[in-house]
Parts: sequence; C-alpha cells; structure tokens
Amino acid sequence: MTRPSDVSANGFEHAGEDPPPAASQYVIGVDYGTLSGRAVVVRVSDGAELGSAVHEYPHGVIDATLASSGEPLPPEWALQVPADYIDVLRYAVPEAVSASGIDPEQVIGIGTDFTACTILPTTAEGTPLCELDAFTHRPHAYIKLWKHHAAQPHADRINTLAHERREPWIARYGGKLSSEWAFAKGLQLFEEDRELYEVMDHFVEAADWIVWQLTGEYRRNACTAGYKAVRQDGRYPSEDFLAALAPGFEGFVHDKIERPIAELGERVGSLTAEAAAWTGLPEGIAVCAGNVDAHVTAPAARAVEPGQMVAIMGTSTCHVMSSDVLAGDVPGMCGVVEGGIVPGLYGYEAGQSGVGDIFAWFVDHGTPAYVAEEAERAGLGVHELLTEQASGLAVGESGLVALDWHSGNRSVLVDHELSGLVVGTTLATRPHEVYRALLEATAFGTRRIIQAFEDSGVAVRELVVAGGLLKNALLMQIYADVTGKTLSLIGSEQGPALGAAMHAAVAAGAHPDIHAAAHAMGSRSDAVYTPDAAAHEAYKELYAEYELLHDHFGQDGNDVMRRLKARRRAVVDA
Amino acid sequence: MTRPSDVSANGFEHAGEDPPPAASQYVIGVDYGTLSGRAVVVRVSDGAELGSAVHEYPHGVIDATLASSGEPLPPEWALQVPADYIDVLRYAVPEAVSASGIDPEQVIGIGTDFTACTILPTTAEGTPLCELDAFTHRPHAYIKLWKHHAAQPHADRINTLAHERREPWIARYGGKLSSEWAFAKGLQLFEEDRELYEVMDHFVEAADWIVWQLTGEYRRNACTAGYKAVRQDGRYPSEDFLAALAPGFEGFVHDKIERPIAELGERVGSLTAEAAAWTGLPEGIAVCAGNVDAHVTAPAARAVEPGQMVAIMGTSTCHVMSSDVLAGDVPGMCGVVEGGIVPGLYGYEAGQSGVGDIFAWFVDHGTPAYVAEEAERAGLGVHELLTEQASGLAVGESGLVALDWHSGNRSVLVDHELSGLVVGTTLATRPHEVYRALLEATAFGTRRIIQAFEDSGVAVRELVVAGGLLKNALLMQIYADVTGKTLSLIGSEQGPALGAAMHAAVAAGAHPDIHAAAHAMGSRSDAVYTPDAAAHEAYKELYAEYELLHDHFGQDGNDVMRRLKARRRAVVDA
Repeated sequence: MTRPSDVSANGFEHAGEDPPPAASQYVIGVDYGTLSGRAVVVRVSDGAELGSAVHEYPHGVIDATLASSGEPLPPEWALQVPADYIDVLRYAVPEAVSASGIDPEQVIGIGTDFTACTILPTTAEGTPLCELDAFTHRPHAYIKLWKHHAAQPHADRINTLAHERREPWIARYGGKLSSEWAFAKGLQLFEEDRELYEVMDHFVEAADWIVWQLTGEYRRNACTAGYKAVRQDGRYPSEDFLAALAPGFEGFVHDKIERPIAELGERVGSLTAEAAAWTGLPEGIAVCAGNVDAHVTAPAARAVEPGQMVAIMGTSTCHVMSSDVLAGDVPGMCGVVEGGIVPGLYGYEAGQSGVGDIFAWFVDHGTPAYVAEEAERAGLGVHELLTEQASGLAVGESGLVALDWHSGNRSVLVDHELSGLVVGTTLATRPHEVYRALLEATAFGTRRIIQAFEDSGVAVRELVVAGGLLKNALLMQIYADVTGKTLSLIGSEQGPALGAAMHAAVAAGAHPDIHAAAHAMGSRSDAVYTPDAAAHEAYKELYAEYELLHDHFGQDGNDVMRRLKARRRAVVDA
Repeated sequence: MTRPSDVSANGFEHAGEDPPPAASQYVIGVDYGTLSGRAVVVRVSDGAELGSAVHEYPHGVIDATLASSGEPLPPEWALQVPADYIDVLRYAVPEAVSASGIDPEQVIGIGTDFTACTILPTTAEGTPLCELDAFTHRPHAYIKLWKHHAAQPHADRINTLAHERREPWIARYGGKLSSEWAFAKGLQLFEEDRELYEVMDHFVEAADWIVWQLTGEYRRNACTAGYKAVRQDGRYPSEDFLAALAPGFEGFVHDKIERPIAELGERVGSLTAEAAAWTGLPEGIAVCAGNVDAHVTAPAARAVEPGQMVAIMGTSTCHVMSSDVLAGDVPGMCGVVEGGIVPGLYGYEAGQSGVGDIFAWFVDHGTPAYVAEEAERAGLGVHELLTEQASGLAVGESGLVALDWHSGNRSVLVDHELSGLVVGTTLATRPHEVYRALLEATAFGTRRIIQAFEDSGVAVRELVVAGGLLKNALLMQIYADVTGKTLSLIGSEQGPALGAAMHAAVAAGAHPDIHAAAHAMGSRSDAVYTPDAAAHEAYKELYAEYELLHDHFGQDGNDVMRRLKARRRAVVDA
C-alpha cells in the first residue's frame, strides 16, 4: 500500500550564529498536508534543517468513491484514511533522520502540525471507526478532510440559530462558522448516520489524534479547540444551543468533544514504545501538543510578537497574527482565540480564499496560445513570462482593477457567494495586463484585511510572508507598494515543519518558551521589499477604486453576484 | 497603382416573383467601404443581383506616414486618397457589368453609398486640395476618413459650448456631436492649417464628392447633411455659435458647407461623358444623391416603414429606423434627421460601438490554446466551436453577466470612456461561458436601445438584421430571446450596394419612390428567429442585472471606468 518516499537532503543555508557544540540536540517536525506528510530534522540550537523526507498518502483524498463500499460519494465530500498518517511516521521520519546524517539518539522531541479542521470519529481508545470491520463501508466513519464541504446546510443552520439566540461566541468568528469546522461536520454525522454517532466515543481533530498515537494521551490543543471547535473563554457552545439545533445533539460537546486542553508547546506526553518503533526515535522523548499548519508557521518566521502578521501565501492566503488586544469584533475574522498561536496572546486568523489559484486559473483558461508559445521560445513558464511582462507596466497603466473573489471572499466579507470581476477591459487589453490586475487585486484584499484589524484597534506592525508565492518578486513588491508596509520573508521553505519542530524543542525543555525558540530557531529575512513611495501613492487611488467595488458588490450595493450564483445553481439543478 | 479586382458572380437566390421581361433594365450600386469599393449590378424589376466586383483602394487607410511628405502622422489620424475612389469606378464597375453578362446599354442609373463622415477639402471645381502640387505634402489636404479621431478636443469644445448656449440642435444628437463629424473635423483643419482652410472652397462629404465626379453637380445629400453636418429644420448651427467657438470660424457653414440639398433617391444629374468613359456605362443615365452605407441598407432589407428597425451587425452595430414621430430627446441617439433614411419620415440612428470586435478580441486574447486545438481537431473555427459549446448552456447557466463596452458605449450613454466588464467569474468559469456572456451583453445593449426608443414614444415594431453576424444562429436566437422580438433577416449579402442601386432606380424613374423600390427590389426573410417564451422570461432577470450594472457604471453610480482610462492615459503620457 505504500509508495517510495521522496528523500531530499535539505540545502537551506541557515543564517544563524556560530556553529553549535558537537553534541547537538535535534527535534523532528512532521507537517501533515492535504496529499502528503513531510518530516524535517531540525537542530535545537539554531534551527538548522539537516534533512527532510516526504511521504505521499497512499489513499490521497477520497472524494469520488469509497473503495470499501464501491459507493460513489455525494458532491463536496472529501475523506482520508488514518493509516496514511501513521505511514508518514514509519517512512518519512526515518528517511529524514537518515538523510540528515544525525544519530537518532540525539533527537529529544517530535512535533506535528496538520490541516484543520480535519476530524475523525474514534472509539474510547482512539481507534478510528473506519478501521472497525463493522464500519469500514460507512463514509461517515472516515476522516473528514478540511475541504469536505458537504456540511454547508448544517453550517447555515448553526449560524442562523447563533444569531437568533445572540450567542456571544459568534462575533469571535466574524459572524459565521465555516462548514469546514467541527460543529457542522459533527451535526452532519449526527443527522446522516445516527448509529455511528452513537457508537463514536470521540470526534477527534487529526492534529490531536496523531499526538494520541505518538503518546497514548488524548488532549485537545488550544488552537483547533478554539478556531475549529468554538472554545472561547474556556467554554464551548451550550447544551441549550445544541438542543435547539437538533434534539439529541445536546451532548455533542460533553460526550464527543470536551477534553483537557494542551497549550501550544506543552508536552502532552512521551513517545511510546510502539511509536518509537515506527519512527526509529528514542522511546520517551517529548511530544508536544498538536499544531495547525498555518498558525505554526508564525514562530518558524520568528513572528510571535504582537502585531507581526504572517501571510502564508499559496493557493489561498492565511493571515495569522498575535496581539495583546482582544477585539472580538474585527469584521470578517476567521477567528480570534486566546493562545491560538502563542500561549498568552490572542491569536487572530484571517484569510483570502483565492490567491495563487486565481493566477493559475487565468493561466489555464484565460491566456491565449501566443503567450504560451512566447514563453516556450523564451524558455520560461507562462507565469514567469506574464510576470516579466507585467513588471514593465506602471501602476495604473493597465487601466484595470479587479476583485479577487473568484473563489469567494473569506475575510472580511465571509461570503463564498461572491465572485470575480475585472473592470476596465478594452479591445486593447492584453493578457499580462489582466494578470497584473489579478496580482494587484489580491494585494488589495490583504490591505483590506489589515485595515479591518487596524480599524478595530489591533495594530499590524509588520508583514511577514511565507509560502510558495514569496518567490514572485513582482508580487511581493506589489504587496509592499499596496500595503505601504515593509515585507519580510520567512527563511525556511518548510515553515510548518520547522514550526512544529520548534514546539517540540519547547516541550522537551530545550527552550523555555516559544518566544525563545522562535528567536533561536526561527529565520526571517527582514525588509526584503520596501514600499516605493510613488507607487504607494498611486496605489492609494487604485485601492480606493477596489474599495468602492468591494463595498458595492460585497455589502450594501448590488447583490448581483449572489443572484447569479443562485440562478446558476437553479439552472444546473433543473 | 492598381491591383487586380476580385470578381465574383453573384449567387444570391432572389425570392422575387416571376421572371421579368427579356428587355430588363438594370442599375448599378457602388458601396464605398473603409478598405475597398464594391460594385453590384441589380435588376430594376426584382432586385436580382447579377454580378459584382470589388476593388481594393491602392492607398488603403493612411494612418502612419504620409508618403508625399515622409512625415509621420500624429496619433488618431486616418486619411484617404480620392483617386482610389475613382479607381473603383474605373475597375470594379466594368468588371461587375462584365461578370453579370448584361449589355451595359441596359443600365439606366447608378447609385453610390459611402462611409461617413468621410470628408475632404476641394477647390470650387471639386478638385481635392491634396491633388494640387502646392498641398500634396499637407496632411489636412487629404480626405479625413470617418475613423479619423484626432479632433476629439475640438468635439469636446463644440459640445461644451452647445450646452452652455443651450443650442436647440444638440438634443437631436443625444446631447453630443462626435469627433468624427464635419464640425469637429472642420474646426481641426481651421486651427491646424489656416492657410489651407482659406484656400479651400468646399468641405465636401465623400458621399457627395463622388456624385459630383459622376455628374459634374455638387449637391449635399439630406442624410449626411443632417447626421454629420448638423442640418436640422433646414438650418445649420448659427454664425454666432461658430464665432463663439473660434473667431474667424463663423463663415464655416456659409463659405465651406452650405449647398442645395438633394433628398435621398433624387436625381442629382446625369452621368458625364468622362464618367461614362471610366465606367463603360451610357452617358446621361441617372445618378442619384449620395447615400450612407448603414442608412441605405434599410430599403435593401425592405424596411422603410415606421418602426422597422434595421440592425447592421458587424464589427459594431448601427441601428437605423424611420418613424413618423419626432422625439428629439430619445437619449443617446446618434441623431434624428428628417428624410435621413427615407424622404418624408424622421430617420433615427443609434449604435453599439463594439459588437463583433468584442467577440474577436476575446478569441484572440482571452481564449486558451486548448480551445484552439479542439477547434482544429473538430475542423471548426474558434468562433464556431465556442458558439457550439455556448449553445449547450441554458440561460443563466454561465453565472455571468457582462457589459458590452470594450469599445465604449455609443447608444444610449454616448461615452467612449466606458469599458468592458464581466461579473461572476469563478475558478470554474470556462471560455465558452465568457463567450456566451459577451454575446448576451451585446443583445442586452440592443434591448437597451430599443427601450430608449419606446420610452420616448417611438415605437419599434420589428427588428431586421443585416451584416455579417446574422450568420451566427445562436447569436440571432439570443437577440430574439433577449428583446422578445421576432427577427427578420436581410436577403442580400450586399445590402449597402443593393440599397444604393435601388435609389438609382428611383432617380431613373423606374420606381416612383423608395417605398416602391424597396417593395420590388428589397429582400427579407421574415420571422427567421422567434423568441422562446421561457428564455425570454429568464432573460428578463438577466437583463435587469445588466441594467443595474449599466446604470451604476454608466450614469450616476461609480465613475471608476472613466477614472481608470484617465489614469491610464496619464501614465502612458508620462
């Protein structure tokens, strides 16, 4: 069932201090992504990444047919298989250690991070229900991946009821819980497979389940408990609320969810003999609380102080920032959670639901053959050629302004019924001009989020970029020019795994807290891009255009986008 | 200097009555386009087209460098050479007659139609100033083609002053004279080459100049005098107005423009011996007043009664319609002129500045390689494939609505600072969906124009389509469904030349008036497309979306399009 792992020696030049003593200590970070898991060996003293390995999940994402039943899954389902996660421990970890050339005995801890909310039903002992013969053919017995979107009707009901009852926690999530989160997924399970719901002892975040497998201890980490399971001020939504949502569901929190909390960087337990055998690591080493991939990138970028906003830019963008201010009403936040990023600070999360995927869509479906041909002649990719051509344009020269809502709007409007828009096209408009307008639109989207923070009294002092898009220098300069902020870049290409490893170092006692670990092990190139004053002034005008369009189509002007989507659905259904 | 003409026997099956008597009479129609002139031989009794020939202008459109001076022209200039028009008479007419197989002695008249406002300075005898050695190197001595757009600042001043002075005629042109028309072009000549202006005896529409060459008589036709030279109720703009515009310009009308009017279909004179030698036609046959290509298409489509709107659909669309009602304030009309299309009726003209060119732009610059490859595999053109794919979509299924302003908006907003827009794009949007949205947008634009007429009390009873786009069956059905009107199609593929020939038949006395000529010689397929009731209902909703966007971006909402264009110009200029 397993495939060979890719093993790659890590070539990152660490900008650290003097070489550490010969008897170094190491930690392992394991980053669980959507399609694969990556293990990285990190030196405790300075964060040097000495080896890494990737293991692809044999079952990948199950969104068409469940092999065990042969039944097709309904639309919007996305499942995973827990054994794939264990395989990452069995293959990627030893290969990373081997690639690093260290002695496994020098490893003092292991940390993990996961996609979220990725969640599964288990027995009291943590056995996934999908591994029991009785349930292997039942879709609800499997892991619901973060992008399982079939619980939208359930999320809608939760949100409507929360506003009707003026539940205090709803404001902490920009007024809307996502269909991706624990309550919507749990309610769907409850209503669609009641028998399984009754059998299930725990509804466990994969981030916590993997720690449970490593330690034998089940604790809920503060991050997913807050962002995905609505734990606020030590409480979850009330039994009253749950009963009003669906009779019989009132015990969901108490029976299926509630569990002692582990703060981030806390030692949940020690590596069991079984997990030591999987990984080849010493039994008894520290295992820290589970983490979430985006949030754990902040310490990897040495951005753990209030006001340091980290933008993890890839297919979509996730913005995470700690603050000492609790402003529950920052519009459109994905959530604010105490200790959600760094213990003792309020962790804010916001996001843009489409960024890199908008650029990819334009290249795939909106760029004519002559551009691809020119790119080929020049020995460039299409993205590279368009970027190069777009670099030659001055601010405003394209005559275009776009809305970056092709995949909906997460922050600050929290509305996936919105859609994309390009204003200003003429017969003279050329592809690289549209491409630049789309790059700019995503920068405007980030500026709008920063503005929402600042308008609510939550200062954003600095912008730190992580993720694959940081390699596009034009995009980075546009972000600096649009936001008027200096851009720093994360040093590591494996931010989440590095962040997970840093939490392991804290859990192992090698650093007193995550601030110290971030200082010693995190890496960031400061002020790589600084705003050009003239461009920033010019972008103020274009941003004003963006805001007008944003407000008109997004909030209280014209609901045409929502109506078009509703009409499209009605036509397709008919 | 001449190239071989294309000669093609006309294969049009004429849906007329019984075959005419053997001793038939014929007329010649000559259609002067932007790049070539076409002559067609037409039978007087039933409009059968028996032969045609095309002659390309040796000098084409001069918009880069004037050969005689070697000087580059400024931006937006577009000139022509009058000898090219004479060449059409010398080559295309005899070739068409030859291709038709008729005896030239059977030809009783010749008619012409032209682009407009295409205008030139001449001596008192009609010699173009550019043919005088003294002026051959002066750009202003040449013909200014309709699409010479360098007089926009002059048009702006004319319009501002007209509104300041509350000139009564400005309302007849939707509140704005175009930079393409006689006053803007004349004012530019006056201010930029005063010496030439003083030497010029006449500023002549090419439509009238060619008739002058055929007959030795100089008369101004009622159509261009009204639509292009602001003749209303028998008067032109006053000397007061002209003096206020520019001191010294007050004599423009009296000295350079004014001339006896010839109604459409009126015999201006007889073919001179010289012109008979050029054409091989009998000396002394009837020559009718000059016509304009769009307007003369109406009788060719047998659409000369009040309320029969003819849409000539190609790169752009021109709408012409006669009415017995004078409603001077139909918003956004290009003009209303008494006898402008048919003597005795008010002729209305409206237009959409971009239609086919928007579709072409999308195919050229917005359609990915995989579409072109699929079209090639299927043995189709890209337009054909996209049309076929778009045909499979139900109304609203694309989830898109667009504004057809990529080339600005002529009617009803009269604003070339507007630009294109597509709302509703998502990562799932595919090229054929955008293509259909663009087709639909132009149909909404036509509906908006019809609505402006009807709101002003000018009934639109029928829609008759001419021009190259009538071959796209999906587009035609969309127009029927969107407007809720039955679509008839012109029978001839050479509408303007046929219309010109019909006016020649009237001038020759073969038919008493253009109504009778249209009945006998025009051709139309009635009710080729009828609205689908369900689609019409569905399009009402989408049209409502179009109207909201139209009004928001076009009139009193958000001026973003105008600001983006202004900013683009400022950046490009800097």
